[in-house]
Amino acid sequence: MKAPVSIRNTAYNENIQVNANGELKHFLSIEGLSCDHLTKILDTAENFTGVTDRSVKKVPLLRGKTIINLFFEASTRTRTTFELAGRRLSADVLNLDIANSATKKGETLLDTLRNLEAMQSDLFVVRHDGSGSAHFIAQNVRPGIGVINAGDGKHSHPTQAMLDMFTIRRCKKSFHSLCVAIIGDIEHSRVARSQIHALNILGAGEVRVIGPKTLLPTSVEALGVHVYHDLKEGLKGVDVVIVLRLQKERMQGAFLPSEREYFQLYGLTEDKLKHANSDVIVMHPGPINRGVELDSAVADGANSVILQQVSYGIAVRMAVMSLILQPGT
Amino acid sequence: MKAPVSIRNTAYNENIQVNANGELKHFLSIEGLSCDHLTKILDTAENFTGVTDRSVKKVPLLRGKTIINLFFEASTRTRTTFELAGRRLSADVLNLDIANSATKKGETLLDTLRNLEAMQSDLFVVRHDGSGSAHFIAQNVRPGIGVINAGDGKHSHPTQAMLDMFTIRRCKKSFHSLCVAIIGDIEHSRVARSQIHALNILGAGEVRVIGPKTLLPTSVEALGVHVYHDLKEGLKGVDVVIVLRLQKERMQGAFLPSEREYFQLYGLTEDKLKHANSDVIVMHPGPINRGVELDSAVADGANSVILQQVSYGIAVRMAVMSLILQPGT
Amino acid sequence: MKAPVSIRNTAYNENIQVNANGELKHFLSIEGLSCDHLTKILDTAENFTGVTDRSVKKVPLLRGKTIINLFFEASTRTRTTFELAGRRLSADVLNLDIANSATKKGETLLDTLRNLEAMQSDLFVVRHDGSGSAHFIAQNVRPGIGVINAGDGKHSHPTQAMLDMFTIRRCKKSFHSLCVAIIGDIEHSRVARSQIHALNILGAGEVRVIGPKTLLPTSVEALGVHVYHDLKEGLKGVDVVIVLRLQKERMQGAFLPSEREYFQLYGLTEDKLKHANSDVIVMHPGPINRGVELDSAVADGANSVILQQVSYGIAVRMAVMSLILQPGT
Repeated sequence: MKAPVSIRNTAYNENIQVNANGELKHFLSIEGLSCDHLTKILDTAENFTGVTDRSVKKVPLLRGKTIINLFFEASTRTRTTFELAGRRLSADVLNLDIANSATKKGETLLDTLRNLEAMQSDLFVVRHDGSGSAHFIAQNVRPGIGVINAGDGKHSHPTQAMLDMFTIRRCKKSFHSLCVAIIGDIEHSRVARSQIHALNILGAGEVRVIGPKTLLPTSVEALGVHVYHDLKEGLKGVDVVIVLRLQKERMQGAFLPSEREYFQLYGLTEDKLKHANSDVIVMHPGPINRGVELDSAVADGANSVILQQVSYGIAVRMAVMSLILQPGT
Repeated sequence: MKAPVSIRNTAYNENIQVNANGELKHFLSIEGLSCDHLTKILDTAENFTGVTDRSVKKVPLLRGKTIINLFFEASTRTRTTFELAGRRLSADVLNLDIANSATKKGETLLDTLRNLEAMQSDLFVVRHDGSGSAHFIAQNVRPGIGVINAGDGKHSHPTQAMLDMFTIRRCKKSFHSLCVAIIGDIEHSRVARSQIHALNILGAGEVRVIGPKTLLPTSVEALGVHVYHDLKEGLKGVDVVIVLRLQKERMQGAFLPSEREYFQLYGLTEDKLKHANSDVIVMHPGPINRGVELDSAVADGANSVILQQVSYGIAVRMAVMSLILQPGT
Repeated sequence: MKAPVSIRNTAYNENIQVNANGELKHFLSIEGLSCDHLTKILDTAENFTGVTDRSVKKVPLLRGKTIINLFFEASTRTRTTFELAGRRLSADVLNLDIANSATKKGETLLDTLRNLEAMQSDLFVVRHDGSGSAHFIAQNVRPGIGVINAGDGKHSHPTQAMLDMFTIRRCKKSFHSLCVAIIGDIEHSRVARSQIHALNILGAGEVRVIGPKTLLPTSVEALGVHVYHDLKEGLKGVDVVIVLRLQKERMQGAFLPSEREYFQLYGLTEDKLKHANSDVIVMHPGPINRGVELDSAVADGANSVILQQVSYGIAVRMAVMSLILQPGT
């Protein structure tokens, strides 16, 4: 009838994300994927930007497929973009309120998973505050069901990174010879980690991280970045600036002196931005803390592509969903 | 790339609701619309009553459109009717849980709006407890996106007023020579304000308000109504009675002596209703406080059209949505 | 206009569930239905297992129909299966958050019902902690609207019972000559009550209940079962074992000594299961308390059909929905 449940301890480096033909089975992290994989996602997303721009924003590609938004951590914005992406592909999308679910009745996560599988789900979109949760679920899910990581702890947020890559490619055409700087709390950011991997795999000319020592991981250079503690210096010759959101809760720890001091040193203003190249683009994963990590004049200024990022986010998520569920297309 | 965000301070009387061809762009308030506009809504709703009555209650008119229910104030009933209206037009309808959204993370309302726009939304249905919120959003939304006011503070609730007008026209054929009385808490009612405007624009013969002085605005006659403090006198010769819901919280203030005394003076009973014309119709926006503003015998009696109002509410909302999103039809 | 609302007090035995042609109008309880009715549901579900297995899990059978999930008691799992069943039949499914609805504003349940009817709903799926609630709603609903009981207090959970019957028939082909044992808290279980009725109507050879006296109803034999207090003895010659979930809250009362003692006496282990026939199947309505009523080795073992139950649950709910809304098919 049914094989006993065993936790298949696939090592991270055994490539759980792709099948024997090199096609995407899950999308859990940027690590483990090749330049070809990332480029395929970007190219597929390119087709879907056409869909979301036109009057009837819907294609029947995933009609009859069931996508479950499995959000253990609340996130209206990310959940909404995945829901819209799934619906525009004509899939049935269900939001599962985990707080009210059977896990509260003492059911294990694996039992909840087995039940959702038994309901003939095709794809789980997982957000969880524990690093590695999406991997764990992908390792234990029934063959044929896909898993997309929508953010796991401090580890990874690969669809966010890919929409950032898409935005950069749209604005700058190519990654080669680009200099990209990421400003802020690298240490606690799953977004930054995924961006750095993606930029290096896609062959960006140079990747820099800029921030105070307390907010940079100790061996951050090993990720393939140059480290700057001075904002103006770090911005010299830069083509793309990615400003990270400063989590307010960091303020209460010993990480930072004060919001005002942070803004003075690392908050991006029009004045400081002049140190970068004149055609620099400014990105932010949202939501913005205006006046903390980013000045309003920059957020709403001519170099900002922050809202394009949101638009492209839907197309990129449609691309990842369709590559996993319809590998032939 | 993107123009800086500026709060376009369109004055109310500059007609933000219609475009150069006189077509509906937003539906924010009855004020500012002409008799032709209101009649067009009623005529369009007439077509949709056919849809909601038949076995397959669905037309493909808004397939591929994205409608966002942006409810800052909880209202299951109103939200449900908008969701049903949108789905029966084949649109994708998303309910946004504002309490759990990015506004909690320090994001401004305008940034939330910009993000939802960037997700290629076509229409926002807005409920907010601040008067003027829907106008504010309409003033600041990207061209091409529509806004429907689903109730803002004490100001306006125009779709409720239009479903009331639809119900009256269905029952009484024409507004001319009709005498309509609105009973209760006019002062705190966004519904009453919108009804009075709609009745006057549509040419109702006479509009009366009936209630204690404490629940009538000071200059209420300026809205084009006759004021009555005595219920029986006010009901003489009346063709349509609209009973307002008495907000229980008013009881705790100085506005009213007691629920029982209110019922004795202004609660509509079969006995008191005899003072009106024999073919009077009785309306109520719901939910009813039975035995407070309305006796059960009247609510469930032969003159009540309260449940028709609910049914017509879906058709009227379908009409407004399709007029905004498909002006050609 | 509208007949006055009266509470039609149909007695339970006046068959409210079927129309004059013997077709299903509502699905409230197993009692009151014939072997033919239950067999029709099982046969219809058989067709739908094909739909949920294939790549495009969708049929247009209920397109344009409106199904309202009216859950007064939270249940993510059951609500999700009904939502999936409705969507795979192409119906519009609305989840109504009763906690935030107009009932909080002092509206009566009947007024809420009348309003939902007026929105042209076709089917209510009702879960409520009061026994008899689904019957009450079915008695008072407008003709033409169906009601499905998704669990009412301790009374009945008929779709759960039917998915169990479906699983048994799939595994064992026929009910005749089968010996079925239900283990656990029969007293507080709406599932057990519905299962016993269904097994007897479908002609099961023998139905047994196994549990401590404190968890068996006093006159349980009257339901047509044999009573066992010893697990090993009760399992002899058994073809189907249904293990009930032990509600943790029972522990706190005087019903049970301790979780550990319960597991020792009535928890199903591989060892104890050897007393049953070798091809016995093990069922559980979920969610499982591993190590309380069921050992993991059995839950995940070769005799377990627990996850099949979940899969078949969708097909059975699709069957009930379509039989009520499309009697001709």
